[in-house]
Parts: sequence; structure tokens; C-alpha cells
Amino acid sequence: MTRLLDESAKGVYVLAVTPFTDDGTLDLASTDRMVDFYLEVGATGLTILGILGEATKLTSLESRTFVKRVLERVAGRVPVVVGASAPGFAPMRELASEVMDMGASGVMVAPASTLRTDEQIVAYFDMVTATLGESCPWVLQDHPTSTGVQMSTSVVLRIIKNSPTCVMLKHEDSPGLAKLSAIRAASEDGDVRRVSILTGNGGGLFLPEELSRGADGAMTGFAYPEMMVGVCAAHASGDVERAHDIFDAYLPLARYEQQSNIGLAVRKYLMAQRGVIASPTLRKPGPRLSSADVADIERLVTRQTKRLRELN
Amino acid sequence: MTRLLDESAKGVYVLAVTPFTDDGTLDLASTDRMVDFYLEVGATGLTILGILGEATKLTSLESRTFVKRVLERVAGRVPVVVGASAPGFAPMRELASEVMDMGASGVMVAPASTLRTDEQIVAYFDMVTATLGESCPWVLQDHPTSTGVQMSTSVVLRIIKNSPTCVMLKHEDSPGLAKLSAIRAASEDGDVRRVSILTGNGGGLFLPEELSRGADGAMTGFAYPEMMVGVCAAHASGDVERAHDIFDAYLPLARYEQQSNIGLAVRKYLMAQRGVIASPTLRKPGPRLSSADVADIERLVTRQTKRLRELN
Amino acid sequence: MTRLLDESAKGVYVLAVTPFTDDGTLDLASTDRMVDFYLEVGATGLTILGILGEATKLTSLESRTFVKRVLERVAGRVPVVVGASAPGFAPMRELASEVMDMGASGVMVAPASTLRTDEQIVAYFDMVTATLGESCPWVLQDHPTSTGVQMSTSVVLRIIKNSPTCVMLKHEDSPGLAKLSAIRAASEDGDVRRVSILTGNGGGLFLPEELSRGADGAMTGFAYPEMMVGVCAAHASGDVERAHDIFDAYLPLARYEQQSNIGLAVRKYLMAQRGVIASPTLRKPGPRLSSADVADIERLVTRQTKRLRELN
Amino acid sequence: MTRLLDESAKGVYVLAVTPFTDDGTLDLASTDRMVDFYLEVGATGLTILGILGEATKLTSLESRTFVKRVLERVAGRVPVVVGASAPGFAPMRELASEVMDMGASGVMVAPASTLRTDEQIVAYFDMVTATLGESCPWVLQDHPTSTGVQMSTSVVLRIIKNSPTCVMLKHEDSPGLAKLSAIRAASEDGDVRRVSILTGNGGGLFLPEELSRGADGAMTGFAYPEMMVGVCAAHASGDVERAHDIFDAYLPLARYEQQSNIGLAVRKYLMAQRGVIASPTLRKPGPRLSSADVADIERLVTRQTKRLRELN
Repeated sequence: MTRLLDESAKGVYVLAVTPFTDDGTLDLASTDRMVDFYLEVGATGLTILGILGEATKLTSLESRTFVKRVLERVAGRVPVVVGASAPGFAPMRELASEVMDMGASGVMVAPASTLRTDEQIVAYFDMVTATLGESCPWVLQDHPTSTGVQMSTSVVLRIIKNSPTCVMLKHEDSPGLAKLSAIRAASEDGDVRRVSILTGNGGGLFLPEELSRGADGAMTGFAYPEMMVGVCAAHASGDVERAHDIFDAYLPLARYEQQSNIGLAVRKYLMAQRGVIASPTLRKPGPRLSSADVADIERLVTRQTKRLRELN
Repeated sequence: MTRLLDESAKGVYVLAVTPFTDDGTLDLASTDRMVDFYLEVGATGLTILGILGEATKLTSLESRTFVKRVLERVAGRVPVVVGASAPGFAPMRELASEVMDMGASGVMVAPASTLRTDEQIVAYFDMVTATLGESCPWVLQDHPTSTGVQMSTSVVLRIIKNSPTCVMLKHEDSPGLAKLSAIRAASEDGDVRRVSILTGNGGGLFLPEELSRGADGAMTGFAYPEMMVGVCAAHASGDVERAHDIFDAYLPLARYEQQSNIGLAVRKYLMAQRGVIASPTLRKPGPRLSSADVADIERLVTRQTKRLRELN
Repeated sequence: MTRLLDESAKGVYVLAVTPFTDDGTLDLASTDRMVDFYLEVGATGLTILGILGEATKLTSLESRTFVKRVLERVAGRVPVVVGASAPGFAPMRELASEVMDMGASGVMVAPASTLRTDEQIVAYFDMVTATLGESCPWVLQDHPTSTGVQMSTSVVLRIIKNSPTCVMLKHEDSPGLAKLSAIRAASEDGDVRRVSILTGNGGGLFLPEELSRGADGAMTGFAYPEMMVGVCAAHASGDVERAHDIFDAYLPLARYEQQSNIGLAVRKYLMAQRGVIASPTLRKPGPRLSSADVADIERLVTRQTKRLRELN
Repeated sequence: MTRLLDESAKGVYVLAVTPFTDDGTLDLASTDRMVDFYLEVGATGLTILGILGEATKLTSLESRTFVKRVLERVAGRVPVVVGASAPGFAPMRELASEVMDMGASGVMVAPASTLRTDEQIVAYFDMVTATLGESCPWVLQDHPTSTGVQMSTSVVLRIIKNSPTCVMLKHEDSPGLAKLSAIRAASEDGDVRRVSILTGNGGGLFLPEELSRGADGAMTGFAYPEMMVGVCAAHASGDVERAHDIFDAYLPLARYEQQSNIGLAVRKYLMAQRGVIASPTLRKPGPRLSSADVADIERLVTRQTKRLRELN
């Protein structure tokens, strides 16, 4: 029995990669291992087929195969959110309907990149709400860097008011601490329903500060999801300095993994090194790491290991 | 037996609309009527699922249904080109392979909107060529207004050199007469293979001048494709002034139909008025014509009819 | 004594070019001749230093010299509006203050290209109003094609409400007939003060329809400003068909002059041919016309002359 | 006697802020103090009127006053580079000529935001070189985030080949380690003259790695320029781990200061706290720090101080 996503979601929803074998085939064995890994380190949810997760490199058949496999492996232990942004509403409905039938807990939608004015954005999400229907909870993804669409605080609040099925904001307006504070203040003042806010800013590069502003956790990717889990746990226990200590230990590598061009290649390299996935392969077109990149990474991992030892 | 698209293509490839019934269902009866209409007025080819043809509002099933119906109705009388631009290469291969199997003569691909440098663009189309394979002729769509990607003349020439299966340029860099001249000069000088060039600039708003610069015809939409057919025929017969006379008679309405916001609604309104399709419906999100818009259109049609009478 | 611009402005404000000699020097003699020409054909105002008028190619000293010369030649016969869009408010205040002291009737400001949300745009123009001060009337330029900023109808209305010194809208959202209708409806309903609306759409390519929607005239450039003057006069006299007849006669050439790349070169070529300015020179970087371009223009001028003869 | 900038430049060129008093007046006393501070902590050069340094909020008179004051205070001790990006070549020549006459060592130019194709970019910088003349060394600023222009490695190399007066690359393509490696490889292979490369990526957020790839230092702003100076010194002495240690100690605050919206406000707040400038004021339009922002900063400074103590 699938648990639907709701406004109480918190913790760490890891943005999963899509594992491929060396020859570029979908790697389902690694998919299982990856799911187990994420759950073992403390993920409270998973997000798949995200904008940055090579979703557009999959055929529609492969997308369905991958979603099905993840859902089977998760087996209801945590909610799974599926990216459903699409160039049109008909394919969005088609994908959302299929994955919800398979057992997803909700979908995630970013604004179409052609939207500009407040009215256009609000009208778009009214259509999204109508398209997805009453029984499909959805996550509003606010990521101007990839969409080019800037949503003001008042627009986000209007969308939440208009859409009873919007239960979460994926906050990744860069960095947007003031916006996060303002949205939280609005629900505390009773202006708007309180939704879950998970943050995605650059692999969690502002996570400690975001938690202090009222975020409920993180929805992002990083080869060491232990960082997000540890920071959230320390923060939840009231030990903010400890949260920063953990964060600082991982920050040099997290920063390196956030490079817009080679970031995903770095993440897959590290996950392969850690034995989570079999191959670091990205589908074309995608970057390859140079030996200098690998040397950088190795140095940062060594330094991180040392620092974590000192910390504990 | 399907005729594959090749470098000798010329005349008018009409950019077909996608007909819907009043309630937004795919209208296959109107699809048949539309195909017949285009062929009767003199189209030498059809292009379907174009960027501006509501392709993104179809589910993948509907796309296939529509392509199949058009191909069946055309029954090999003229080549049919199918838009295959996609956010990734896997879905591009999937769609292209399916439509070619159904009997399409070629596909059309525009550059991904993230491309910027010359190298990125050339590398992208090398991937397109490899993705589509040796037996799938393709059309390079150069439409900076919709893609945001500017391809210089030298980039277009490099793509043609690198890609033996690229047989046509859909030229709609706005307006780009100098670019058209330069590309033609390159093939005349033997620098590059001569490909077909059909132009799409704003419903043919520069068609007479483009033909003078060496274009082989038009690939665009307009509720009166008679205009493009007439201009091309007059030009081919050497009567350039007659080509301009025909063009000028249609220009005021063609201009009105090219409005970026309501243009497609104008076209469908006119096609419904002409009895070609049953309903002027656009799928949401799409504009609706106001009574003032309709008054404008009616005036322009009346004036056009009068002018055409004077012309003949 | 300078007449300040106010909400009653109407007719044709010609967007003036900046004349240079063959070697690129500011040509003040041609500036005088150009002013005389515009006024003789019926301009009711002039606009200088516009975004597309090579303003950015002038040094600050040259800008002032040119403004001064135009104002002296106009000698108060019609209002002169000066483009004052600037990357910051300090240089905007500096320029506006200087040109108003010289005798300009108002300034024109477009939104900074970094603005996205409704709030950002409204806040920006609040700053513009404060920067320009109580005694400087200004024109709101709505030109998304050049600024990348889309202002919804409600944003335009908010700006007019907030800014008592905003007396005119230069409407060139492409094409935006519905927006024009909505803004006019708002002032007729008493929601907002009625400001002057002059339209700039592509050299007046929608002028007859815009006048029918309530525009007060045109603010744009075209080598034959007689077109705009004639269309406005016929429309004002109630003869809408005559307005269209005049418009249609000029449309083929107006369309050609609106090419985004070579348009200004076409305009200066024609103005030099007509004897208005001494040289068609554009400052670098700027396009040069090819012989094929010139052949196109000559053909269109010949056809236009013939057509105008038939019209009268 | 001014030393002109040349290809041997290295170390830390601090991107200076523009100090204002609480009421927004140019603060020349703070300007002097800021210059002294930068030089005392080890800056080997200064850069003023940068894109992000509130340059556009100054009148042309204020710009000149500020440049003059900085140059007088520096008094030839280190080279001063002045930002000279401008919307046109005439104002670029005007500004560059004035500041070189005042004693600047060179100017910095970023590509105009309208440029797209490789040819357009190369042609633009050919014009820049011709505009600035033979005696004005200049810095090529490669900052796609602010300009929207992506320059491939081959384009950067063509510009260096074409422009003998281009002596430095300000590398801030984000993050662009592979590009840096490729440009260095090209000069080592003798393909192109070796120019100085200083990096500006997000306040030096990749500085240790960039130095390993062959960068000669940093040109960026941060309220603690000691970081850049210390990292460069440790790296130059061969102690790469020490360079990382210093970097890591400052990274949490440097990251916080790089927020695209409030970053400059954070920097000025910290500089005012450190007594370098009298007031943290930014000219409008500019952000203000909230109490939550200040609390974040204070925490990070406290943690940084502790960490630096442990380091030494």
C-alpha cells in the first residue's frame, strides 16, 4: 500500500542517479544496490527522474523500467517522488498517471522555461493541478538556474493557495534564504497552509542555514548523503554547531561535486568508488573526468576522511 | 514504398496543424481532410509534429496515431517530414525509428536550447547523425527565435560536411538573407554538398526575396498555402514581379497570422472557416481569439479576396 | 519655453536615426535636415537616443551634442523625447537632468534586462519615478524583444498607478493587440488614469489594428514616415479602409526594413537616397548592405511608388 | 611613472568595492583606507569598476573621481586595472583613454551580452583591440554567469592570437578547470603566447584547484583577501596541502559571501565590521541584510576565527 506524499515530509530525500553499465545500458542491479545504500545511510525518501538525473537520456520505456525497479526495491519503506516536468500537459498527465499507478508517492514539477510573468506562472500551475488530478500529490520545484523562471515569494504562496495537492516546495532558488524565511513566516502567520520545504541548493551547500530558516530537510544529490543526514540529525537535536561541524567537513568535496559541467560525473565516480554502483558511466552527451579531475577528487576525499576522523 | 527525402526536395512543404475536435480530442477525420486540402492546393511535401504545431501537447500514443494517419492518407504521394527534436538522444532515436518504420521520408531536428559555442553545436549534430543512423535523412532546423541558438554560416556548413544524411536546411534565422546567400555560394564554389533549402521565416514573410537568393521553396504554415505555391511557381517560371504581386496580396493577412501569441489560433480559425478542419480548437494552454481579433481577421480576408480578384 | 510631454500626446513620434558622415563623424548638418524632413511630413513629435538608434555608439559628449542640436532645430515646434534607459539610476538621473535642462519634453525608460518577477519590475519603475523627480514626464517602453522583460497588463497598470509622471506607454510588446485593448479598457472603466499609447511594433507593422484598439498613434522609425502619418490621419478621419490601403502600399518595404540585422542599414540607405541624410553610414559594429540587398530594396521602392500612384 | 600591465602579472588582484557613506555619497576617506588595507594584506594589484562593483550606480563624474582617488592612493605601488566594459565602442574608448591618462595599468573588458557565435565574439574583441589602441593593455573577462556569453577554449585562444595587447585572462567560467588546463596546455605547446591567468570563480571558491591547473593567482573579491593571499603563497612555496588548509578554513564564509543576491551586502558588512570602510551601505537598488543574515554571518566569523587559530 503506497503512502502518498504529504505536508509532513522531512529529512533527506536523496536525488538518485540513474546507473548505467560501462556500455550505457540501464544497470538494474546497481539500481537495487543504490536504493539499499541510500536507505541504509538514512534517506527518508527518494527522488528519481530529476532534471539533472539524466532523465532526458532515457527512452520512455527505460524511464518506466527504472521507476518500476526503484519502487519494487524500496517496497514502500520510504516515499518515492518522480520528476514529471514535461513540455506539455498531455505527456505530463501520461507519465504522472503511470508512475502513480506503479506506486510512486508523488511527482515533482518545475515551471516551463517559457514562463515569465507572475500571471503566466500561476496559471501554469493551476493547469498542473488540474492535469494531475485530485489524488496525485506534487512537489513544486523552484530552480531558476535550470528553468530560467524566477518565482517571487508571493507567486509561490499563490500557487500553494490555489493547489491543495501541492504538498512540498523543493527550494533551490539560489540561495534564497530570505525567500525561505518569508514563506515560513507566511504559514506561521496563517496566510497559507504549511507545506514541507526541502532544499536542493547546490548539493546542500547552504543546508545548515536553510534548516535554521525553517526548512524541513534536503532534497538533493551528493555522493556522501551521510552529510545531509548528519546535518539534519544534529540540527533536529538542537546542536547547531555540530551540524556546522559535519557540514564543514564535507564542504570542500561537496563544492567540487557541484560544478555545473562535470558535477554528475564526479558524483558517479565517487559512488562507483564506494561500490554503490558498478560503473561511473554517463550516457552521451556527458563529460568525462580527466586525470587532473581525478587527482583533485582523490585529494579531497583523503582530506575529508582525515577531517571526519578528527570530528568523531 | 516510401521515398526518402533527399537534397533535390523543392516547392512547398506545408507545416501541418494538428486538428482537434471542440472537446480537444485528436480529430482524425479533419486530419484526412487537411491532408487532401494541402495536396490539392499544390504542396510538394508535408511536415508534422513541428515545434509550433502543438506536438508537445500530444501524448506519445497520440503522436504515433497522428503520424500514422497522416502517412496513410498521404499514401506516398509526397514526402512527409516528422519533427524529432527531443531533450535527449534516446527519445530522439525512439521517435525517429518509429516514424521511419511507419513510412516517414525523414525527420527534422533543431538544436537543443542549451547549446552556445560553435563546437557544442557541431558536436551536437554529430551525435544527431550517429543517433539517427545511416538510413534516416534529416532536416536541420535553424530557428533561433524558438531555440535561442544562433548558428553561424560556417557552423551550418560544418554540419552539412559532417553529416551525409543531412539533406535539407530549414532556414528560418530571422530573416537571414545574407546567410542564405552565403550557404548557396559555398555549394556553388564546391566547398560543400548542395542541400535543399526551404525557408520558414514567419509564414513565408520573406519568401520572394529568399527564392531570389537560392532557396528551393518554403516549409512553413499559413492558412492560405496557395500563397507559397503561387509565389514559388511564378518565381520558378521566371516571373519575379508576378511572384511579388501574389505575395503582396496575401501579405497583410500572413503578417497578422504570424503574431507569436495568437498566430496559431488565427490559422486554425481560418482553416475551420475554409472547411478544412472541423474545429478551430487549440489544446490548453493556448490562446483564444477575441471578437476584436475576429473582426480584424474578417476585414483582412475581405480585403485579400478583393485584391486577389484584381490580380487575376 | 519647452512644452512638457503629457497624457494627451498623439500622432506620429518619429524615432530618429543618428546621422554620421562617411567617416563616422556625427553629421550635424544632416541632423538639421532630418529634423526638418520629419516635421514637414507631419511628425507630431520626435524621439532620439532610442535603444535601436545607435545611442550606445556615441560618447557621452556626442550624445549631448546631438540632443542639443536636435532641440535647437526643433525649436519647440514639437515635443522631443530622449531615451534615458541606463544600467544604473545615477547615470539615468544625470542624463535625464541634462536633457530636460536643454529643453527635452520628456524621457523614455525601458526595464533593465535583469528584471523578472512582477514585483521586481514594479519596484524598478518606482525607483525610476523617484530618480527622475516630479518635473520630468516619462514614457514607459514595453519592448520585450530587446529587453527580455515581459510586463503583464496588470504590471503596466500598476506602474501607471504608482507613477504620476508616467504619461505615455510605448507599446511594442510583439504584437500585443489584446494587451493594448486591456489597458485601454482599464482606463475607460476608471481603474487607472488614461495615458497616451503610441505603438512601435516593428516599424508600425500592426498600426491599423493598433489604432482600432485605441492607440493614439505611432512611435517608431521607417524611412517613409508618410506611412504612419497617412494611416493615422485616415484612421482619425474615420476612413479605416483608406488607412489599410495606405498601410498595405508601404507594407512590403516596411517589412523589409524591419529585419533585425540589417534593418537600420536599410533605413539609412533609403533616407540617404531620399536626400534626407548625406551618408548611409552606420558606426561599427554595424552591418553593410550587399548588392543583393540593394537590389531587393530598389525593386520594393519601384513597386511601392507604382502602388502609391494607383492609390491616389 | 605608471607600470603597464603585462603577461607576467600574478598573485592577488583584489576586486575592490566602492565605499559609500550612510547616505549614499561616495566615501573617499574609506576609499583610501580600503586601498591601504588591500595592499597591507598582500594584494599585488587592484581592480576597480568591475561588473559586480556597483560601477553602474555611479555617474560618469563619480566614476572618474573614484578612479582618480584610488590611483593617487596606490601611487604606483601595484597595478590598477579598471573595468571598461561598455554597451558601445565609443564610450569604451572614452573611459579607457581617460583612466589610462590618469595612471591605470590596464582595463578589463567582458563580451557584450548580445554576442552568440564564435565569429561574433572574435570579431567583437578585434574591435576592442582596435578601439583601445596599441598602448592600452587589457584583460579578457570570461564570466558567462553575468554576460550570458560562452567562449570556448578555441575562441579564447583566437582572441589571444589576434590581440597583442590582451595580456591577461580573468577566468571565471564556472568552474572551468578543464578550460584552464587546455589554455595553459596551448601556451606550453607553443600554439599561443602565454598570458597571465587570474581566476575569479565565486570569490575564489576553486582557487587551490585552479592554481594546480596553472593559474597565476586570483582576481576576485572577498572580505578576507588574506585567504587568497595565503592560498597563493602556500601554493607558490609548493605546500599544496597547506594551501587547502587555509582555503578550507575560510570556505564556509566565502561560500556565504558568494550568494548572488546578498553577497555584496555581506562583503561590505564584513569590511565595515573590520574597520576597512566606514559604512556597509550599498546604493539602491541593492539588498539589505536581515537580522537572520547577520546572525548567520556572526556565527560563521566566530567559527572561522576559531578554525584559523587551530590552523596556526
